[in-house]
Amino acid sequence: MSKKEPVGIIGAGSFGTAMANLLALNTDVLVYSRNPELVEQLRKNRFRFGVPLHDRVTVLNDFEEIAGRCQLILPIVPSDSFRAMMKSVTPYLEPSHVLLHGTKGFDITGVDLNDVPKLGIDRKQVHTMTEVMLQESVVVRTGALTGPNLARELLDGQPSGSVIASKFDEVIRRSTEVLSSSQLHVFSTHDVLGAELAGVLKNVIALGSGILKGYGLGKNVQAMMITRGLHEMIHFGRALGSDNRAFFGTAGVGDLIATATSSKSRNYTFGFRLGTGETLEEVRSTSQELAEGVRTLMITRHLAKNLRLRVPITEMLYQIVFEGFPIEVAMNYLITYPYEVDVDFL
Amino acid sequence: MSKKEPVGIIGAGSFGTAMANLLALNTDVLVYSRNPELVEQLRKNRFRFGVPLHDRVTVLNDFEEIAGRCQLILPIVPSDSFRAMMKSVTPYLEPSHVLLHGTKGFDITGVDLNDVPKLGIDRKQVHTMTEVMLQESVVVRTGALTGPNLARELLDGQPSGSVIASKFDEVIRRSTEVLSSSQLHVFSTHDVLGAELAGVLKNVIALGSGILKGYGLGKNVQAMMITRGLHEMIHFGRALGSDNRAFFGTAGVGDLIATATSSKSRNYTFGFRLGTGETLEEVRSTSQELAEGVRTLMITRHLAKNLRLRVPITEMLYQIVFEGFPIEVAMNYLITYPYEVDVDFL
Repeated sequence: MSKKEPVGIIGAGSFGTAMANLLALNTDVLVYSRNPELVEQLRKNRFRFGVPLHDRVTVLNDFEEIAGRCQLILPIVPSDSFRAMMKSVTPYLEPSHVLLHGTKGFDITGVDLNDVPKLGIDRKQVHTMTEVMLQESVVVRTGALTGPNLARELLDGQPSGSVIASKFDEVIRRSTEVLSSSQLHVFSTHDVLGAELAGVLKNVIALGSGILKGYGLGKNVQAMMITRGLHEMIHFGRALGSDNRAFFGTAGVGDLIATATSSKSRNYTFGFRLGTGETLEEVRSTSQELAEGVRTLMITRHLAKNLRLRVPITEMLYQIVFEGFPIEVAMNYLITYPYEVDVDFL
Repeated sequence: MSKKEPVGIIGAGSFGTAMANLLALNTDVLVYSRNPELVEQLRKNRFRFGVPLHDRVTVLNDFEEIAGRCQLILPIVPSDSFRAMMKSVTPYLEPSHVLLHGTKGFDITGVDLNDVPKLGIDRKQVHTMTEVMLQESVVVRTGALTGPNLARELLDGQPSGSVIASKFDEVIRRSTEVLSSSQLHVFSTHDVLGAELAGVLKNVIALGSGILKGYGLGKNVQAMMITRGLHEMIHFGRALGSDNRAFFGTAGVGDLIATATSSKSRNYTFGFRLGTGETLEEVRSTSQELAEGVRTLMITRHLAKNLRLRVPITEMLYQIVFEGFPIEVAMNYLITYPYEVDVDFL
């Protein structure tokens, strides 16, 4: 992996585009989109999400070319199409490739999302993106790119910090080399599962934080909910086998603060609209990009049930979002919930 | 301490007034102000900070009466007048009293704040409010009231969570009894020093968060700074003898989120104005209430220096606020600061 070798990105969504422009500060970038019309359009006008693509960014519809020219490839596609994407690119991947994904959601197998309320779900049916990459390809050296990275801000040139989570020092070193710039501080951790789970689970709390705000509530109770939400995330992470560490860092608290207090976060905004009284279907039908938090909420609530975890915030949010439970009653439940101690996981 | 006995409050500032109205949901409240004109005025019009005082709130200029009628008393005055306040009330306090303070700042002795840059400061010269209460009175059973409690929101009837920190279960039990309501969830911890320090130190990070925003930066870098700031708070707390626990709870992360992301926070707003280019003197001359964070920043930076702690955010903020260091250069320094690992305190 020489410094002159380009870096590949799979997916031309908002975060993929933002990362392409950031990588282009250091290296050539090849972006793969499965949509030939989008590729054609981007090659012509070179504008995406209101910003120009960096000169060093090339958009392609040909993954074989990207796999042939890039050792480091960043898959950044929504969690519900991640496995299908991996299946389609895996013929071109070799053990020498390095995959660093930037997707914050769960993959599920063996059950359709719509059937989860009826059939439930267990740990074996729920997969992190790193698990999917390992299951679907011969690639060994994998990692996750996470942290407080609101795509809109990155696109607009705002500085940020990211976290590279990998078991492999080589993945961390090379990814840091191509990503670090005066716009991006790159942290690292070996706690891959913790960092991934933090990034996934925080979307649920961001959704809830948005609901509170949309409902007209203030910062105090929002901060209390985010804090208790962080604790639920940690309990959940522990039950899935991760330790506490990543949750307290930039990938955990950091991402949670950015996502759960910003109107530029899709999950927060989705929740906000629910809080103002719109129904799930109304919000869904007018949202351009998917709010990962809604899907994650469905999966985590049922997985938590399967694992017999005490997660009152997740449970309340589930009932609000999917069962029309009144927000006022849910709020009162949370305010009066008998938490015995404030910090019980250390 | 019977349930019919009133609860006392020392100080009629915004947080004291907010707590008076909250306590009045459960009990009679006697508020002490040292300012006879304010007492007179409040007894007449019963309006403070734009909200009516609850019927069960009585404002008095006579602390002796309050000490005689209340066993539980909440001192809530700015940190720079806390010791003087304690000296003035201590003749009326007995060992049977319980003091639960609600002040988030440090007291210093042996050096004038203005001389700290020249003379420095050490741990023996810096005191938490609990330490001051114990030093200045015969009271034994003490505690701290902390957590995400923006006074403006509490005054406006918004729900919130508070944390009672005390070594004494009796203090926790009785305080919880009189404070818990459908507007306030009361958490508790025995980690008094940690909870106090979290509440004090977060004001510095809130100041910095405001500076970033005032300077025009986004949520990503704000979240990164708040997260690294939390880590500095923990390092600092450890050096002063507290453990990590409270920092991860409602008194730590919770208070930090509320204060460092809200325009209703004095410290955040103070920082925001500095970020837009106003000087320290300009902001100071037009602020009605003190931003504790400015005083705390002065004390913590010099104490950190004395303790040889590595606290780059505190150091940068100190240079911006007190030495006119350019924000742009400071930001670049923080983005490129060589943090080796993301979470290094567990």
